[in-house]
Amino acid sequence: MEISKGPQAFPRPEYLRRVAAVKAEMTRRGVDALVVNNSRNVTYLTGCTARTGITPQAVVVSMGNEEPTFIMRGLDAPAAIHQSFLDRGRVIGYPEHFIGNPEKDGFDPVIEFLHELGVANRSLGLELGDLSAQTAEKFKRRMPKAKIVDCSKAVAWIRTIKSDLEIEVMREAAAIADAGIMRAAEVIRPGVREADAMAEILATLARGANGKPGTDLANAFFCSSPRTGTCHIRWSEDIIREGSQINIELGGVRHGYVAAIMRTFSVGIASDRLRRVHEAEVAGLESALNVVRPGATCSDVANAFYRTIEKHGVKKHTRCGYAIGVDWTEPTASLQDGDMTELKPNMTFHLMLGNWIEEDFGYALSETFRVTGSGAEALTLSPRKLFELT
Amino acid sequence: MEISKGPQAFPRPEYLRRVAAVKAEMTRRGVDALVVNNSRNVTYLTGCTARTGITPQAVVVSMGNEEPTFIMRGLDAPAAIHQSFLDRGRVIGYPEHFIGNPEKDGFDPVIEFLHELGVANRSLGLELGDLSAQTAEKFKRRMPKAKIVDCSKAVAWIRTIKSDLEIEVMREAAAIADAGIMRAAEVIRPGVREADAMAEILATLARGANGKPGTDLANAFFCSSPRTGTCHIRWSEDIIREGSQINIELGGVRHGYVAAIMRTFSVGIASDRLRRVHEAEVAGLESALNVVRPGATCSDVANAFYRTIEKHGVKKHTRCGYAIGVDWTEPTASLQDGDMTELKPNMTFHLMLGNWIEEDFGYALSETFRVTGSGAEALTLSPRKLFELT
Repeated sequence: MEISKGPQAFPRPEYLRRVAAVKAEMTRRGVDALVVNNSRNVTYLTGCTARTGITPQAVVVSMGNEEPTFIMRGLDAPAAIHQSFLDRGRVIGYPEHFIGNPEKDGFDPVIEFLHELGVANRSLGLELGDLSAQTAEKFKRRMPKAKIVDCSKAVAWIRTIKSDLEIEVMREAAAIADAGIMRAAEVIRPGVREADAMAEILATLARGANGKPGTDLANAFFCSSPRTGTCHIRWSEDIIREGSQINIELGGVRHGYVAAIMRTFSVGIASDRLRRVHEAEVAGLESALNVVRPGATCSDVANAFYRTIEKHGVKKHTRCGYAIGVDWTEPTASLQDGDMTELKPNMTFHLMLGNWIEEDFGYALSETFRVTGSGAEALTLSPRKLFELT
Repeated sequence: MEISKGPQAFPRPEYLRRVAAVKAEMTRRGVDALVVNNSRNVTYLTGCTARTGITPQAVVVSMGNEEPTFIMRGLDAPAAIHQSFLDRGRVIGYPEHFIGNPEKDGFDPVIEFLHELGVANRSLGLELGDLSAQTAEKFKRRMPKAKIVDCSKAVAWIRTIKSDLEIEVMREAAAIADAGIMRAAEVIRPGVREADAMAEILATLARGANGKPGTDLANAFFCSSPRTGTCHIRWSEDIIREGSQINIELGGVRHGYVAAIMRTFSVGIASDRLRRVHEAEVAGLESALNVVRPGATCSDVANAFYRTIEKHGVKKHTRCGYAIGVDWTEPTASLQDGDMTELKPNMTFHLMLGNWIEEDFGYALSETFRVTGSGAEALTLSPRKLFELT
């Protein structure tokens, strides 16, 4: 029997608004059809959060059709029908002989669809920053008369400004991230294996907050002494020791949207050095949020942070964050010196102030915030403290 | 201070064996230097399992150097020094100005390194199936005299045959996967939210088994009625109901290696239809494992399964599995009709018999197995039963 439509994260007009924004950008670029294969953009334009694993999928946006067409491996089509806002006729599963086939893959039926759509001689947008070189070659070979326009990041830039509905979902995700941090403060204790502490934290991120479950798990990192100068280690096989420091980065997830947060934990009394860095960073965080307003730039925000911590005798050599939304990092606005992107209401950022000062010493602090009409609103609300677990 | 070397998943000779195999393949292909950017291959050749997020990284294997060189964003270098087998001089962090830079990215310092290595006029292997089209263009533009050879899947094919040490790690991962399934059988109950059941299952996968913690979480899917005809939905916001069916796919992880398993759960007595499919599939699984031996082909294994279930009146339209190892699926040997890859000892597969029969009805069963000197050894050991939770 046919699968039913599942509950939708957003109402249909929200998706049509997004598709209309993409079409306006296509018009600006003179593109007749756009092939979207970046998985975050696929979620944004369809509502589908199911994963296809390693098999190709693409959303085709064309000027003549109100809804996009979503093409994927046949066995993934029922999930797309169930989760997406699309009419079932707009979900096309390709047959299994494109899997494990050295001659063909799932982009061949995508190209066949484009031929049928009548755009083979027209202007075709591709995400060349996301498509593999092999696949881009295939498009050129099988559509030799198409004018290929690189539309990498075109949809990602549209994603930077969220609707109020998206902000509400990110607020739910932020509450889950906060719950993860507060659970960490409960379970990090001397003698506990890191894996067992993380088990509790990850379970909390799945259970969610305020009656809203996490809908997925995002990356989570547990970097303990002597690994506090690293940022992307999941966790180790060590047992938590008295005197250890632990830097945690995690995210809550709702319907594909992530809100991220970082906090630092000291098992026992923190060292003076760690405390000084913490005080500098909290002051820097407040300075950065204080300059956020529509019209300020990403560079302004980063430099407010850098100036403040330098007054405290602390330096940070990495950027201060990035746009965030579907599946964590957006590859667009960057909170760093020289990024002149102007802030606009309902842009959302991960103000990521992790500071890896030496190979074996670092500190973690961050908030996910949105730009309001006049300033910044932190979505993550955990105490901005150095968690001393004594 | 410098970060210390962490405990290594494998001894140095194991990594040098892998690098030597890659060099032999490079010689066969006439390649002077190979740029490996596929994250699974990076883990395979270095031991590093830390994630870099969205920033470029590459391992460069060249004939003149015993160890590869690992190039990544500077802030990720301490984790690579800590986790990998490489001498610290072989870990190169590039500066932060390559991040969030519209003109350059982390592949620019990789290209600079190749120029310094003296291979700019020579034969250069790239993984064009993993590199984006934009990045491949950059290599061509900045190394116009290099002869670029597509080495996509070259390392992946080397990965197909595991060492005994790798098998031991996969056995540990399989025990964790089994623990996840047995935990699912305990927590799936009417009235429980799916997210709460998954929280327990995911926590079990982190805690691990036999004193060996999970070192990461792999994908996990909880597809419940009416979603049993789908395969890649994480979980839903529903509450588990009496009479529901739930198909679970999950993996245990040790040091980057995954062992995967699928089982089907019925909340209450299973329907006759589900029971008939289950009996056919278990018989098919046994038939498939019975034909596994060195010299048999992937196609033989798949067809043994298809023939047996068809005798039971059941058909499956998708392939029967794939090579598995670092980070789940390997894009090489495929258990499907027509794949003439010959089985060899210590190849490992996910015999994936998930069968999505209608849009709203499917069934899940799988094992991770290795090819032995004379047959098959299942690494996952959960009972091959339809779990009826009454």
